[in-house]
Amino acid sequence: MRDTRPRSAHVRRSSGHLADGRELIYFDDSEPYASGGAQRSFDDRRPLEPHASDSRMRFDELAGEWVTFATHRMDRTHLPPADQCPLCPTRPGHQPTEIPADDYDVVVFENRFPSFAGDPIEGHSDGSTTDVPAHGRCEVVCFTSDHSTSFHELGVSRVRTVIEAWADRTAELSARPGVAQVSVFENRGKEIGVTLHHPHGQIYAYPFVVPRTEAMLRQARRDRRGEEHDLLGDLLAAEIAAGTRIVARGSSWTAYVPVAARWPVDVRVVPHRNVPDLAALNDDERDELAVVYPELLRRFDAFYPRVAKVPYIAAWHQAPVGEGRDLCRLHLHLFSIMRAPRKLKYLAGSESAMGAWVNDTTPERIAARLQELARD
Amino acid sequence: MRDTRPRSAHVRRSSGHLADGRELIYFDDSEPYASGGAQRSFDDRRPLEPHASDSRMRFDELAGEWVTFATHRMDRTHLPPADQCPLCPTRPGHQPTEIPADDYDVVVFENRFPSFAGDPIEGHSDGSTTDVPAHGRCEVVCFTSDHSTSFHELGVSRVRTVIEAWADRTAELSARPGVAQVSVFENRGKEIGVTLHHPHGQIYAYPFVVPRTEAMLRQARRDRRGEEHDLLGDLLAAEIAAGTRIVARGSSWTAYVPVAARWPVDVRVVPHRNVPDLAALNDDERDELAVVYPELLRRFDAFYPRVAKVPYIAAWHQAPVGEGRDLCRLHLHLFSIMRAPRKLKYLAGSESAMGAWVNDTTPERIAARLQELARD
Repeated sequence: MRDTRPRSAHVRRSSGHLADGRELIYFDDSEPYASGGAQRSFDDRRPLEPHASDSRMRFDELAGEWVTFATHRMDRTHLPPADQCPLCPTRPGHQPTEIPADDYDVVVFENRFPSFAGDPIEGHSDGSTTDVPAHGRCEVVCFTSDHSTSFHELGVSRVRTVIEAWADRTAELSARPGVAQVSVFENRGKEIGVTLHHPHGQIYAYPFVVPRTEAMLRQARRDRRGEEHDLLGDLLAAEIAAGTRIVARGSSWTAYVPVAARWPVDVRVVPHRNVPDLAALNDDERDELAVVYPELLRRFDAFYPRVAKVPYIAAWHQAPVGEGRDLCRLHLHLFSIMRAPRKLKYLAGSESAMGAWVNDTTPERIAARLQELARD
Repeated sequence: MRDTRPRSAHVRRSSGHLADGRELIYFDDSEPYASGGAQRSFDDRRPLEPHASDSRMRFDELAGEWVTFATHRMDRTHLPPADQCPLCPTRPGHQPTEIPADDYDVVVFENRFPSFAGDPIEGHSDGSTTDVPAHGRCEVVCFTSDHSTSFHELGVSRVRTVIEAWADRTAELSARPGVAQVSVFENRGKEIGVTLHHPHGQIYAYPFVVPRTEAMLRQARRDRRGEEHDLLGDLLAAEIAAGTRIVARGSSWTAYVPVAARWPVDVRVVPHRNVPDLAALNDDERDELAVVYPELLRRFDAFYPRVAKVPYIAAWHQAPVGEGRDLCRLHLHLFSIMRAPRKLKYLAGSESAMGAWVNDTTPERIAARLQELARD
């Protein structure tokens, strides 16, 4: 156990390791610290084998994209009953979970079933794209020890702690050898295949720049005047000028439904400053985000009558660690595949095979509904 | 009704129109012709409004892709009971369906709920990408009048007729003004959102080159020697040299699991000649395809124990009508989202938001299973 850098006045960070060697980091809100941060918070007595990953990746020459193969994920924990949740604290008298402490505020640990793991291996950097180890890192972020709540019910102060954790992990993982890009996301809802209900998100430190970012880079470089440009900044300005699709506006952040939104509920949240990632946000920006973001999630859950929890994906697009860093402004893409109560948008031939999206609704309808749900 | 060009010695083609003006074309196998091809086969007495589409499309500047908005599709027919199937023939004493004839072999008609429809409109070709009509055409292909069968059970001769219909539609739609690319596909299974169970496929005549093809064109032009190349031909040669992932091999076609397959079951079927589309296939190639393709579909349905019908997407990638035509060899992408009995592969944060695929299995395992299922 090493008790290290306080990342903000309000958060205590302490890190240690689980029985199989995986790193675990507590982010405690305030005194008295929930996790304790003491030795017993890292006292994982499970008889786990040393952690290893056999993930590999290959380059899809036809698409120009890396594809990862993580066969051990086939065996991952799938919708366990609530009393066997691996993300709950380890309660006295119960089976030990992934978190040795008997309570916590926010905790981050290395995924037991990672898609990417380990450092780049010497001798595999020969340019071969046939079959190489999928190095990088996958982490799990537990937002709360309360198994049954939702992100938007955490409260502003807890969301602020989560943002600290995201920023901490982004900075640290970006500095690891071989990491090209760090992505922070939450998948919520069994409709999108979530295998654990406990409120949690994920962090992927990819060994390559993801295809969606590669596309943004191409677009940012495809300026009509032959100049590179801050595409997210231009799009934000255009949305503010249009006005009709803005769903939330603060002094540091604006949320809007994109003019070419492809999902049934689809919002982009953009900072007013051109920052590359969450670690680059200043305190004011983090403070406002802690208010704006859960408010948007609240409106998602209110979007459809008689649907209490809307499945969603909330994905932070962060700039690559290396080349193109100044061209990819940080932004959140928040969307749902639910197109009506009990009806999902499926990706069939046109979307899955051709990449050509057809949306049954319009960005203006989505925006109107989200605007109507704003608190007075 | 106009009775026109016989496209092969075995198929009679007759076309006419439905009550709302949509085109309908019968492809009759052999005498006595099932649909009759006579006036009564086009006698649609439903009180339908003239057909119109309000589909629009907008360019997603961030992704560099067109997104289509087809709000009328929200109201499309959704899993009707079998006795109200709109793709069955119109049986005496029953409600009229989309097909006025009391029987048919293969029939193609314009989709009542199209994503793309109509010709390009003058004055909208000003380069504006903000909001333009989504012109083009969407057609439905009924493979058989038998409501309860599957494509792989049609029999070789019927599959041959379907291939004629696909080739006919590809040639005709490619010649329409404003059509950039024609895609032929079948979505099978409610797990991928299929709204009608009757065996049928679809044809989309897109007004743009689809994103997946744009990616292939980029890759085909990204040759190490700075030369454009026949990427599908190169990949086919590499797969034949590797040998391990070949699942079917004829004199005109080879089927293999791609080295970087991203779906739980994933096959590419490629002709040995560099042809741009189905219309360019010669008789020998069509004849062999009519055997190879249903055999692969049979193996898909046998892939998992205790799963009778595996959901799949079968998508024909055809070359663009214009630029890049010589760089995009015709091929079929046949894949399933089912990763185990009753378990689907979901596209969550990494796939849906980042475009970075993680597969729980390996191409070699998929290939081994499909090889094992080959008929002796």
